[in-house]
Amino acid sequence: MSELRLNPVTREWVIIAKERARRPEEFTRSYTPGAGSLQAYLKGCPFCPGNEEMTPPEKFRLEEEGKWLLRVVPNKYAALSNEGEKVRRRDGVKHIMTGVGRCEVIVESPLHNTSPAHLPLEHVENIIRVYRGRFLDAYRDPRVEHVIIFRNHGESAGTSLRHPHSQLIATPVVPVQFRDRVSASMHYFDDTGNCLLCDIIETELNDRARIIFETKCFVTFIPHAALSPFHTWIFPRRHCASFSGITDEEIGELALHLKTILAKLYAGLNDPDYNYVIRSSRPMDMENEYCHWYVSLVPRLTHTAGFELGTGMYINISVPEESAEFLKTVEVEP
Amino acid sequence: MSELRLNPVTREWVIIAKERARRPEEFTRSYTPGAGSLQAYLKGCPFCPGNEEMTPPEKFRLEEEGKWLLRVVPNKYAALSNEGEKVRRRDGVKHIMTGVGRCEVIVESPLHNTSPAHLPLEHVENIIRVYRGRFLDAYRDPRVEHVIIFRNHGESAGTSLRHPHSQLIATPVVPVQFRDRVSASMHYFDDTGNCLLCDIIETELNDRARIIFETKCFVTFIPHAALSPFHTWIFPRRHCASFSGITDEEIGELALHLKTILAKLYAGLNDPDYNYVIRSSRPMDMENEYCHWYVSLVPRLTHTAGFELGTGMYINISVPEESAEFLKTVEVEP
Repeated sequence: MSELRLNPVTREWVIIAKERARRPEEFTRSYTPGAGSLQAYLKGCPFCPGNEEMTPPEKFRLEEEGKWLLRVVPNKYAALSNEGEKVRRRDGVKHIMTGVGRCEVIVESPLHNTSPAHLPLEHVENIIRVYRGRFLDAYRDPRVEHVIIFRNHGESAGTSLRHPHSQLIATPVVPVQFRDRVSASMHYFDDTGNCLLCDIIETELNDRARIIFETKCFVTFIPHAALSPFHTWIFPRRHCASFSGITDEEIGELALHLKTILAKLYAGLNDPDYNYVIRSSRPMDMENEYCHWYVSLVPRLTHTAGFELGTGMYINISVPEESAEFLKTVEVEP
Repeated sequence: MSELRLNPVTREWVIIAKERARRPEEFTRSYTPGAGSLQAYLKGCPFCPGNEEMTPPEKFRLEEEGKWLLRVVPNKYAALSNEGEKVRRRDGVKHIMTGVGRCEVIVESPLHNTSPAHLPLEHVENIIRVYRGRFLDAYRDPRVEHVIIFRNHGESAGTSLRHPHSQLIATPVVPVQFRDRVSASMHYFDDTGNCLLCDIIETELNDRARIIFETKCFVTFIPHAALSPFHTWIFPRRHCASFSGITDEEIGELALHLKTILAKLYAGLNDPDYNYVIRSSRPMDMENEYCHWYVSLVPRLTHTAGFELGTGMYINISVPEESAEFLKTVEVEP
């Protein structure tokens, strides 16, 4: 029989379809998407060196010996405009607001054919350091209410541009999804006196069955109520509500966790498409006792359907403990 | 500049990316998925006549002259088991429940190569009547807390079986998504004294810009804050919290709306993949003053990415008013 497990962060139940579940290796991509065979430079790619004029004027660059290692540029096809005033209006049930905010692209490398799974560890550190800088910078904009940093890898994860890049979107409103999670954590704190995520870390370290990788500052694991196959959480052990509070030591370790899990997915499942997001409170809410920032990684291995649309619940056709065991044994170079 | 619009049902803002928006006809499928060229009978299809033993024992059938027109069978690959007791247990932050409930398949026709867009109107009525019957039947199970009826059309909508069918899933818990929507409607009712959906209908009928089709009992329109291209709502004009309260007259009209919108999508966008769901309260909550059942239809024309995952907000690269205008002008046979 299948099992329902509660995701304590969203308070939504997940159906772990144990009977229908596939073995971890069955999620391996059957074809090679060509990342390995891509060339290091692609003519016409807006993110390749030499094509800098194809992007809007740069916001930031990291250089070495006169060459850039990483660039931050506004998204040319931005969904939200960096210019203009934030104006709300209301007409009965219709609430409308001007589409202001920020959409930035973090071009992670001059090389077209790499990814954080393959970049040197020090360079993944650079990327995370730039995430922190841009995160802080975006919140200085008074029109901005919420900032999300994410990475789309592969077509089914919503990107068509192969050149390695992450994105930052700063919205002029706070997402209800974020409010709901804060509210759930707050009630948990009021009921127990503890931070929910701190308690989850403790539970996972006691259980051990879903842990993939742990170091002094971080734990990478498959959640007990994983939404989908190989859904992975990277939790900082130290309680801190905002990603902006990440220390230099933690940046080094997060780089190691991110590179390791992405390399394990690449090697174990043949370069699956994925999204990862940094879920975080604002810098000014850093001291909040019940919010705890983290990274959520979702490989795109299955489709959602009418059930997920109609209920918000998920059917996971993999067993979290089996996925964790599988990834734990995939060997990758440090 | 793009525009943010509030979805009053979910209270989540949607980014209508007007500048990046594509014209309605640009969402037309570039290849024909082969529905038209499919044969009426497929050897080995578990839902084709003659293969009845390939499905678990039938729950219901509609017959004419000794031949079935429609069958309801348990899903052979059910995510929730119809057998067994509902048992909850808790271990710290881990909440677990036995996976009991119902997963039924409504085989809509003996013909392999049809769909509600092409079936005779009287037969679409049959399907909706069977939806009502199964909906009521599922709620008689004391383990069931919530029932969702939905249809997945096409691979990106989560189905691999072409034979026309809908599904019913009855869960042993109430989805948080449902609770959150009820709560939003309740607060709206307390603030205004009105049902939110009744007010939305009134607004849409005043605006007229997003209405595709309206009759005595139903209004079909693109929501002001549509989540994605051609996202469509079918609202009953009469306030009623539960789909189980649909009258025979309303069944006839809902069939007309469903067939019409699906035929318009088929003709206008070359058979796009889609999901539709019936969003409804329980039969016993029929008299609720602030809940209002409806049908939500989501064509699968774009991918969600890290932004949607990380915020729950959507970026819609179409303009609702343009989508409505486009569908209004697509001619289909009644």
